[in-house]
Amino acid sequence: MKPHATKGPVHIVGSGLLGASTGLALRALGVAVTLEDTSPAALAVAGQIGAGQPGPPNQPSLVVVAVPPDVTATVVVTQLLAHPQAVVTDLASVKSAIVQHLVNAEADLTRYVGSHPMAGKEQTGPAAAAADLFTGRPWVITAPTAASHKAVLAVRDLATDLGASVQYLDPVPHDQAVALVSHVPQVISSLLAARLVGAPGGALDLSGQGLRDVTRIAGSNPDLWSAILAANGPAVAPVLRAIQQDLDNAIAALELGTQPAHLGQALVQLNALLSAGNQGVGRIPGKHGGHGQVFDQVVVLVPDRVGAMAKLFALLEAGGVNLEDLRLEHAAGQAVGRATLSVPQGMGPVLTASLEENGWGVLS
Amino acid sequence: MKPHATKGPVHIVGSGLLGASTGLALRALGVAVTLEDTSPAALAVAGQIGAGQPGPPNQPSLVVVAVPPDVTATVVVTQLLAHPQAVVTDLASVKSAIVQHLVNAEADLTRYVGSHPMAGKEQTGPAAAAADLFTGRPWVITAPTAASHKAVLAVRDLATDLGASVQYLDPVPHDQAVALVSHVPQVISSLLAARLVGAPGGALDLSGQGLRDVTRIAGSNPDLWSAILAANGPAVAPVLRAIQQDLDNAIAALELGTQPAHLGQALVQLNALLSAGNQGVGRIPGKHGGHGQVFDQVVVLVPDRVGAMAKLFALLEAGGVNLEDLRLEHAAGQAVGRATLSVPQGMGPVLTASLEENGWGVLS
Repeated sequence: MKPHATKGPVHIVGSGLLGASTGLALRALGVAVTLEDTSPAALAVAGQIGAGQPGPPNQPSLVVVAVPPDVTATVVVTQLLAHPQAVVTDLASVKSAIVQHLVNAEADLTRYVGSHPMAGKEQTGPAAAAADLFTGRPWVITAPTAASHKAVLAVRDLATDLGASVQYLDPVPHDQAVALVSHVPQVISSLLAARLVGAPGGALDLSGQGLRDVTRIAGSNPDLWSAILAANGPAVAPVLRAIQQDLDNAIAALELGTQPAHLGQALVQLNALLSAGNQGVGRIPGKHGGHGQVFDQVVVLVPDRVGAMAKLFALLEAGGVNLEDLRLEHAAGQAVGRATLSVPQGMGPVLTASLEENGWGVLS
Repeated sequence: MKPHATKGPVHIVGSGLLGASTGLALRALGVAVTLEDTSPAALAVAGQIGAGQPGPPNQPSLVVVAVPPDVTATVVVTQLLAHPQAVVTDLASVKSAIVQHLVNAEADLTRYVGSHPMAGKEQTGPAAAAADLFTGRPWVITAPTAASHKAVLAVRDLATDLGASVQYLDPVPHDQAVALVSHVPQVISSLLAARLVGAPGGALDLSGQGLRDVTRIAGSNPDLWSAILAANGPAVAPVLRAIQQDLDNAIAALELGTQPAHLGQALVQLNALLSAGNQGVGRIPGKHGGHGQVFDQVVVLVPDRVGAMAKLFALLEAGGVNLEDLRLEHAAGQAVGRATLSVPQGMGPVLTASLEENGWGVLS
């Protein structure tokens, strides 16, 4: 059993994916957990998989509210009143409306700290729960200014015990941040993917990695995401309106460009949009929290057979090369794939030489 | 030297990335290549790297026009007139306007066949050229109805000799197809990335894989892409207008959703958009040309140190597991990554058991 700071007992309200996963992780650490849910079936499943004891709370020191976004605020108020000694947190992905609701309800804000664990999976419900759901994931803590140090520490301990990486943001900037980096990208990806519904099959056969990347998250759960988007409407809508303005300009430029006399002006306008995109994507931090860290990239042809990747990685190991990132890509109908290896800056030429010496096809 | 069908001599007009790469690949096969370019500097570089002989064509059997999209059509006309025995192809990514121009110019359409090799890289110019640029990439052939069988075969031979995978489409459906699967995704990705320009750094620290995926192609070259978009404006604009309509509806739904009385209606509208996105992304063919092929996915924790991936792949090899796809993901500040392995359906549980037996942390 690993060392942990959360003493418990912990009461979890809501035994869906996030609530049951929290329970499983805490039970694995030996912390006492009680569970409640408005759905007797979900509660039974969560109890059955070992996420905690279904039934009334037993003087909890911490209450975790893991219910749908539209009822989170009222459940937090109820729990603050029901357990006057407990710290209460919630796991909803939109935070400022909850704080506003607590202020209006004159709730005890010293004992409330918001959480947003940035973890999830395609399935929902307690049957999909996992003790390691939060391992290696960001967990944002949004504390109202009135929150006590003790309350913030209790929630920080919970996140850390569950293997997550803690970050702090105030509720309103948090909601604007997730609108920008998570909720708006979801809408944009879905808007593009929706255009594929009526497309001829021959067109889709030309799909490349670019389309696959832009539309990957369009595969997300519509019920969950419509609730998240609606809950964060005030932060999502202004970003979409700004995109709408840029989109209007892009369409106008394309229409202008069909007239030879105005092609130059159209090109300047399209270039401005694409350059802004260059600048924006350059601001996304690299992995390991580094900002704009640069890697060498080496592209190698990989035969589509068992063991090809193992041979490639054995060579990397022999050369002492640490792989920072990898992308595998197959063209339709081809028996050979392209693997793009990202390695620390300066290692690219070394790796290329070593691969070529060993008979690998390195693409320049 | 590998067997090849292109006899030559081949004359290449335009010695940028695509032209010089074509020359390098043909020279590697022993085919005689002459080069011309309006830029003496580009021509000298292309000649220097061995992409062909700068200078006048020598009775070419095939002419490859690899010039910017805004001058492609006029150069094709000139080349058809200058070489009455030659087949002429071009490598531009937009095709129907070229055919229209040839019809207006009463050019010999029996000897013209359009090409669109779907290959590129971030750098441009002859210095970035590579003989293997087209290896394993789709190459679309767009033949006007008047094109002779001999002409189509000559271009098919060229594509095949260069290692590409040939597909056929008529010019107008081709332009609509690339608008949908390539040009519109570029605009959409850039529109989103442009919103990151003024974002606070704290927001960007919450960036996850979703944002990275949707914005990856926003890093593309603005000069190249503004020219491509302008050239295909008539096919790109209608798709963007349809997205604009859906975006208007999404914004309206988000605004409606801030009024509790209309939340239900807002959720239904958002759900419809997200569900259409689900349906659209499901239509993108899987790799190897399979439509909607399904794989098992296994997520495993990988320590961030040299040799970790090699050990993982050695285990896959020992188990006879063929890796279909792999995604590496690191949370900011974490020393452990998540590798998502896609393996043939049914192999997931076998792989999981084998990994766990060998001490790997498999995430459920």
